[in-house]
Amino acid sequence: MRNDIYRTRLAKSMDKRVLKFLSSLNEDNWILEEDIIGTEAHSIMLYEQNILSLSEIKKILKSLNKIKIEMNKKIINKHSNKFEDIHPLIEKLIIDDVGMDIGGKIHTGRSRNDQVCVDLRLRIRKEIIMLSKILFNLLDILIPISKSSKKTYMPLYTHFQKAQLGVFSHYINNYNLQILRMIERLYEVFQRVNLNPLGACAIGATSINIDRERTAELLGFENNIYNSIDAISSRDYIYESLTLLSLCSLQFSRIAEDLLIWSTKEFDFINIDEGFCSVSSVMPQKKNPDSLELIRGKCSKLSSNVMNAALLLKALPTGYFRDLQELKPILEDSFSKIKAIIDILAGIFSTIKINNNKMKSSIKNSYILALDLAELMVNELKIPFRKAHNMVGLIVKESNHLEDLFDIKIINNKIKEHIGSDFILIKESMDYLKDFNLILKRRDIIGSPSEKQINITLKMIEKEKNKLLDLFISKQKELEKSTQLRKNLIQKLLS
Amino acid sequence: MRNDIYRTRLAKSMDKRVLKFLSSLNEDNWILEEDIIGTEAHSIMLYEQNILSLSEIKKILKSLNKIKIEMNKKIINKHSNKFEDIHPLIEKLIIDDVGMDIGGKIHTGRSRNDQVCVDLRLRIRKEIIMLSKILFNLLDILIPISKSSKKTYMPLYTHFQKAQLGVFSHYINNYNLQILRMIERLYEVFQRVNLNPLGACAIGATSINIDRERTAELLGFENNIYNSIDAISSRDYIYESLTLLSLCSLQFSRIAEDLLIWSTKEFDFINIDEGFCSVSSVMPQKKNPDSLELIRGKCSKLSSNVMNAALLLKALPTGYFRDLQELKPILEDSFSKIKAIIDILAGIFSTIKINNNKMKSSIKNSYILALDLAELMVNELKIPFRKAHNMVGLIVKESNHLEDLFDIKIINNKIKEHIGSDFILIKESMDYLKDFNLILKRRDIIGSPSEKQINITLKMIEKEKNKLLDLFISKQKELEKSTQLRKNLIQKLLS
Amino acid sequence: MRNDIYRTRLAKSMDKRVLKFLSSLNEDNWILEEDIIGTEAHSIMLYEQNILSLSEIKKILKSLNKIKIEMNKKIINKHSNKFEDIHPLIEKLIIDDVGMDIGGKIHTGRSRNDQVCVDLRLRIRKEIIMLSKILFNLLDILIPISKSSKKTYMPLYTHFQKAQLGVFSHYINNYNLQILRMIERLYEVFQRVNLNPLGACAIGATSINIDRERTAELLGFENNIYNSIDAISSRDYIYESLTLLSLCSLQFSRIAEDLLIWSTKEFDFINIDEGFCSVSSVMPQKKNPDSLELIRGKCSKLSSNVMNAALLLKALPTGYFRDLQELKPILEDSFSKIKAIIDILAGIFSTIKINNNKMKSSIKNSYILALDLAELMVNELKIPFRKAHNMVGLIVKESNHLEDLFDIKIINNKIKEHIGSDFILIKESMDYLKDFNLILKRRDIIGSPSEKQINITLKMIEKEKNKLLDLFISKQKELEKSTQLRKNLIQKLLS
Amino acid sequence: MRNDIYRTRLAKSMDKRVLKFLSSLNEDNWILEEDIIGTEAHSIMLYEQNILSLSEIKKILKSLNKIKIEMNKKIINKHSNKFEDIHPLIEKLIIDDVGMDIGGKIHTGRSRNDQVCVDLRLRIRKEIIMLSKILFNLLDILIPISKSSKKTYMPLYTHFQKAQLGVFSHYINNYNLQILRMIERLYEVFQRVNLNPLGACAIGATSINIDRERTAELLGFENNIYNSIDAISSRDYIYESLTLLSLCSLQFSRIAEDLLIWSTKEFDFINIDEGFCSVSSVMPQKKNPDSLELIRGKCSKLSSNVMNAALLLKALPTGYFRDLQELKPILEDSFSKIKAIIDILAGIFSTIKINNNKMKSSIKNSYILALDLAELMVNELKIPFRKAHNMVGLIVKESNHLEDLFDIKIINNKIKEHIGSDFILIKESMDYLKDFNLILKRRDIIGSPSEKQINITLKMIEKEKNKLLDLFISKQKELEKSTQLRKNLIQKLLS
Repeated sequence: MRNDIYRTRLAKSMDKRVLKFLSSLNEDNWILEEDIIGTEAHSIMLYEQNILSLSEIKKILKSLNKIKIEMNKKIINKHSNKFEDIHPLIEKLIIDDVGMDIGGKIHTGRSRNDQVCVDLRLRIRKEIIMLSKILFNLLDILIPISKSSKKTYMPLYTHFQKAQLGVFSHYINNYNLQILRMIERLYEVFQRVNLNPLGACAIGATSINIDRERTAELLGFENNIYNSIDAISSRDYIYESLTLLSLCSLQFSRIAEDLLIWSTKEFDFINIDEGFCSVSSVMPQKKNPDSLELIRGKCSKLSSNVMNAALLLKALPTGYFRDLQELKPILEDSFSKIKAIIDILAGIFSTIKINNNKMKSSIKNSYILALDLAELMVNELKIPFRKAHNMVGLIVKESNHLEDLFDIKIINNKIKEHIGSDFILIKESMDYLKDFNLILKRRDIIGSPSEKQINITLKMIEKEKNKLLDLFISKQKELEKSTQLRKNLIQKLLS
Repeated sequence: MRNDIYRTRLAKSMDKRVLKFLSSLNEDNWILEEDIIGTEAHSIMLYEQNILSLSEIKKILKSLNKIKIEMNKKIINKHSNKFEDIHPLIEKLIIDDVGMDIGGKIHTGRSRNDQVCVDLRLRIRKEIIMLSKILFNLLDILIPISKSSKKTYMPLYTHFQKAQLGVFSHYINNYNLQILRMIERLYEVFQRVNLNPLGACAIGATSINIDRERTAELLGFENNIYNSIDAISSRDYIYESLTLLSLCSLQFSRIAEDLLIWSTKEFDFINIDEGFCSVSSVMPQKKNPDSLELIRGKCSKLSSNVMNAALLLKALPTGYFRDLQELKPILEDSFSKIKAIIDILAGIFSTIKINNNKMKSSIKNSYILALDLAELMVNELKIPFRKAHNMVGLIVKESNHLEDLFDIKIINNKIKEHIGSDFILIKESMDYLKDFNLILKRRDIIGSPSEKQINITLKMIEKEKNKLLDLFISKQKELEKSTQLRKNLIQKLLS
Repeated sequence: MRNDIYRTRLAKSMDKRVLKFLSSLNEDNWILEEDIIGTEAHSIMLYEQNILSLSEIKKILKSLNKIKIEMNKKIINKHSNKFEDIHPLIEKLIIDDVGMDIGGKIHTGRSRNDQVCVDLRLRIRKEIIMLSKILFNLLDILIPISKSSKKTYMPLYTHFQKAQLGVFSHYINNYNLQILRMIERLYEVFQRVNLNPLGACAIGATSINIDRERTAELLGFENNIYNSIDAISSRDYIYESLTLLSLCSLQFSRIAEDLLIWSTKEFDFINIDEGFCSVSSVMPQKKNPDSLELIRGKCSKLSSNVMNAALLLKALPTGYFRDLQELKPILEDSFSKIKAIIDILAGIFSTIKINNNKMKSSIKNSYILALDLAELMVNELKIPFRKAHNMVGLIVKESNHLEDLFDIKIINNKIKEHIGSDFILIKESMDYLKDFNLILKRRDIIGSPSEKQINITLKMIEKEKNKLLDLFISKQKELEKSTQLRKNLIQKLLS
Repeated sequence: MRNDIYRTRLAKSMDKRVLKFLSSLNEDNWILEEDIIGTEAHSIMLYEQNILSLSEIKKILKSLNKIKIEMNKKIINKHSNKFEDIHPLIEKLIIDDVGMDIGGKIHTGRSRNDQVCVDLRLRIRKEIIMLSKILFNLLDILIPISKSSKKTYMPLYTHFQKAQLGVFSHYINNYNLQILRMIERLYEVFQRVNLNPLGACAIGATSINIDRERTAELLGFENNIYNSIDAISSRDYIYESLTLLSLCSLQFSRIAEDLLIWSTKEFDFINIDEGFCSVSSVMPQKKNPDSLELIRGKCSKLSSNVMNAALLLKALPTGYFRDLQELKPILEDSFSKIKAIIDILAGIFSTIKINNNKMKSSIKNSYILALDLAELMVNELKIPFRKAHNMVGLIVKESNHLEDLFDIKIINNKIKEHIGSDFILIKESMDYLKDFNLILKRRDIIGSPSEKQINITLKMIEKEKNKLLDLFISKQKELEKSTQLRKNLIQKLLS
């Protein structure tokens, strides 16, 4: 029997070069398991609808079991360049195993067009679950770092210039909040992905008496897609998956850049563990943070994958076109890269060394408290902020030593000159500027880097984390339920 | 008084060319109204916190009212190239109006960094509401078209080749379902956008005794952002807005392409109203569907805007950088383009003419019922689908006339040859293949183009539409409540 | 001996996960041959500079020969996940083979940083030569098609609407001219790529007495790069290669789209050979031009690869960073995809069937000669073109039959009405409008689809093709000369 | 007379919203001058071909002169939303001025399709000339900086880590070489742009007896395009312009990043002039290099413009489509942004302050000479480089003080331990490591940062600059010649 089992309508086989060009078989490894699961569910339903007999379903399920056992790259590699994709390959393997009279029935009431959408939706669903776990794990590494660095003072930067006094914990909580939003979005996409396209057949559904509710149940899909064209032609769920992964990667690239800058000798705020560093083939002194650079670099791919998808989808008419095949490898690539990136980043954070002293001296060696001084003037003297800002700006401009910023004489002279001699700052009111802890304590508003507020933020982060965790756990349980249902049925049918 | 009110720390003014290069003033028109609203709310809170006196808040609110009245491009154009952006311009206008002693207080406890985030979040919020309305309007045009074309038979295509029999309504419902998902995503983004960054100040919050809960309430923000770095440095809400608009545009580009193909003389399924067509400067016979082409074309911009944002954000360290300024014009551009695109598309759909006869004859002039025939064999004779598929494939290959597909003799010969002489198809069982309505009726599964199923899908679409509409209406009411709260307070304070 | 031969400076080995994350070994297969060639040339030069002795160079060259023989994926796979990249692997293999005292010398006066640039430049050089051959081959298929279809009349389209009468040959020559420009650009890029980075070492050159002129000669590089930072840090030659491949792909995607449209049943201008078509898994009647769709689809990747490179390079400081490693796989991907695309397209064109009759009837079934009529009025009656255009426009609008366009009475009535009764078109002057050949003959200007002008264009195309072919042949000869020089030296040294 | 002068074929005017959506009139300001020039040349040719009479050409040229005088945004704004684009507007203005009988002739033998290509090619040609001048100007600022900083020692970095000793001049020459390649590529694109599309008419040329050679001459086009489809449908010259501008911008973003890093307080290698810096609205101490950040930021747009073009062109069938209109604004944007970026960068470089001492102390405070030491061992003791590299690596690892690297005892102990006691480094051989100048002198190979080699590179740079300058001057002269030819003819005809 020929391999191109669909091809009776044409006189000619496909040109070999063309088959090589068209074949997605190697890439289909990514959806192999899903293709088998989808076929199991479809076949069970066909049996329940009396389209397959008991003996037929037994043989088909056994045959699928065999394929599952051999299920690994090797099968596919063996057949590579002989099949256009995974779907005819598996149909062919079954037909070879149980004969055309039985195997020829598995494709009843479905088409490659809805089948590949089942596979993709099942696989994305799985990837989202996996990714959520990796992100929760990263939170589990970052939250303790945040908790233990609430008094690790550091300069906060804008424009690469020292801006305000802060603490390391505050930076980490910035990361934590973003990661929580990533997980939230993942959940939303999950909901839109987890729908059943089976039954759409090629594009216009089927006259075979299939039961979509049942395949949805067997596959753990939350609902059916209510229009067969939408089911096989739309790829919005893939595009939104890709854009979300790109969004995550952009954020991680920013984190990597933070760490890269901080680990230069010139900043020296942190040390990256040697296990995450490379050396030079010629310069004996080098210790290079290559893993951070490569995180930054690999992030580029995730955004260009979005562009690839946009180029593929833009102005593609409704309906299935072979172009859509090219979405699969970029989806796999984006999921695989983001998981690796987060994994490495988790490793870097769990071994990071923070140079408290270096950060402290960087604060001291700066005018970073200038805003605190200006606000002190406002609070104490009730003068307009803009005037206070201008005066402190002049003090900085005219100062010869960093200490000038806290010189009560200079300050009061400046005030006298710009506001009037009625306004005098009392030396004691400035005392707290010598104590980083007290400075931050004064910033007693939601979201500030004061210890109290950081504790509030941390509680909020943990609450939100647990809320999202519960959502994902419940989804996972539903999926496990459907898996169990399928397994039980298969066991029963095979017994 | 000099225009660069922040600049005492530096000896030199900014180079003129540099100011022109840096200034976002022209683009800031987009957030002008929001900047004023944000300043009102911040000022009211400062008054309530006893940082502004009653007479001070009165003067400031009056001054803001004046600016609001003159609020239009002209103000900004006049000052263009004199200010770096809208924030110092408005502060300067107020100071010029009410004097430094009062006007110099409005920037107490905030910074441009949190202020611009307020403006952007308020504006995106508004745009999302507007966009949702335009999408609901498009649904209101498409749903009646769907309802009235449930018996408008048309060929469904895959690979630009006729695939299965369908109806026009089914195509439209495919669009409807996608639009519903767009609205759903808009709502999710809205929730993440509608948060208060005020109080983050430059990056590390403020020691001024401000009340973030209150500004959040006054501005209708659902919650505060719980980390000051996150508040001023993250742009994930912008990136996800841009990706969602890109997703919408890609879908609309596919719809435009459908319509373009169908309106070629060769297909001739629809007529685009002349009001949406252009002519040639030389070819007198031409009637060109330029508006569809330009929809397709303009969609490109929305995806390249995503890329622009990715390029801007990738590996940007945490903190504020001037690069972020470049996100504003692309956000404005994406919202503005998508609204125009949908508007034009709504116009095209409300004037479209469907050529029923042309579509019907296209169906008849094809082998489009081949799958129905193969499934008929399966249903009647219980033979494996793959065999039925192969046999019908051969009939098509060997046929001289389209009618051969329904020739009971040819069919039964083929069956005899491939299955055996025990299997005979009865002529009457094929009768329904002559009636498009009956053919579709047999496809009695969820999401099929049969009239019954289309009615179910339409009900589902309307239910989902109403659910989303309720969500948006409730959001809008909350926003109106905060607007009213602000207005009442202002009125009271000014009286 | 440990595999990480560079790593004495660090106490710790690299984390295994990190090594997997960082390693480019699998991708380095693409530059394996080039890495060996580069090492041969560098070693020969070291010998000539008395840095290696005769017995040392002999052993090193023999060792390289061994590696060359085993040179295939298997070597690399074996070492995969043990080395960061190809460079330490080969150095280690040589050291293992000939001992540290000799093998430890091959990296004298060079670094991975200049070495990888040698490899990339050699490989791009080779790819450009290969690609130029494939493009010349495509021209050799298209030029005969053009020559044989000078009288194959077809409608030319703008806006998907019939515009002017033309011939198939004219379309093909449009393709030919674009392919010629691609080859021209390839040559320009070749010139900028073919430069020697060796000697730049890590970034600041070397104090070893190496001879850059000699390695340039041995490797066929046209010149040295005159700044060591530029040599190791710039990737403009990669970016311009990627953009050129993207440009080519966009053009080929447009050709694929032309063919897709023309091969719909509705247009039916061409038949794609079955060897290049796919079938449906369920619809027995389908013959789908999947290979054209996949050409269109794969083209997306080449433009997103440009975006990937832009994301990688944007704002990367000068110097080497590990991010740059990610450029290699996209370069390989772009070259590999464009070669496959052109190859398949060449196959499609060499088996294409043109439906002359269908195109002719499409012309007849239209108002496509409307402009010819308007220009006839201008030529015969010296009336303003705009008036002629307007009158013919009215004739089309008011016409009931296609023939009205050539009805002398209708035309003269229209003229009388709009111009005056002094102007009368003589029936005989319109006779040529019945003969497609005569119509085109009147368009006797450079670049028109008239047979005479097509012959001129074809001559120009062949002349340009030969000019470019000569350029590439001369480049190839230079490369062969350097290969021969290297081989002779190696043979002499090994004898 | 109605504004839509082309529209007799249709019964309905264009919908107002649609006209607003379609109209490119505001953007067409960019090609207004070119459109007039193109019309002048076309009209003169029509006169010379006896299609216009002397009195007709006089009136048309006078009318064009009037439009030229009023030529500024205001004309266009007045007509905005009344015309689809610039072409019918100008035709209409002429007809209004000189009457239909004469004005109605200017569009004889051409179409908007070839006309817009004339405009675009003329404009790109002009932009390339302008851009080349700005780049030459940047070189004229950078070359003197390079010349004066040949002894300004600085650390060269890879991976953000100090790598090798260099000089500032060497960094600048890296920039210079890249700028030279930009100019070279500009010239190549210029050659492909400078071709005449006129005569292609809509797509299939014209039967009017026009003279393409003459319009080419009058417009300074080097040659005609030899295929009318290619002339109106291809946009490769636009895509390659955009990719080249993107390439330039990526390079400038890397330069901006270098300067940003160097101007942090932590590095402190350079000072950016205050005229190019911004301040904070709240933090009085800040001096932010906003102009560099915005250069970096604006560069993103140029690469996303490439993506926009790719999205527009991908799979667009051959022929003119309205989508192509969207290429114009991104072309204008890319040219305008790159010119501004380079201009600001030129300003920054002409006012930059280099902190020699800071760079020197950064060198001293490092192990940056480790490779020089390893190579010294190789040169003096003839030991394998890999061994020397390993030993120096160990010295760094085990060292307590930076001075250990030059401690002859430590070094000789290490040598004894790893190589044997026969090998001893003589103290005097290390003396030169104390003198930066002598260290670089030893790197006496092409492209190194030694003074001698920098002088050679600088000579090469100046030679290349002059060569390219000559090419551009000769092109400019040719364009001026054609401008003069046109002006003389117009003057003669109008006299």
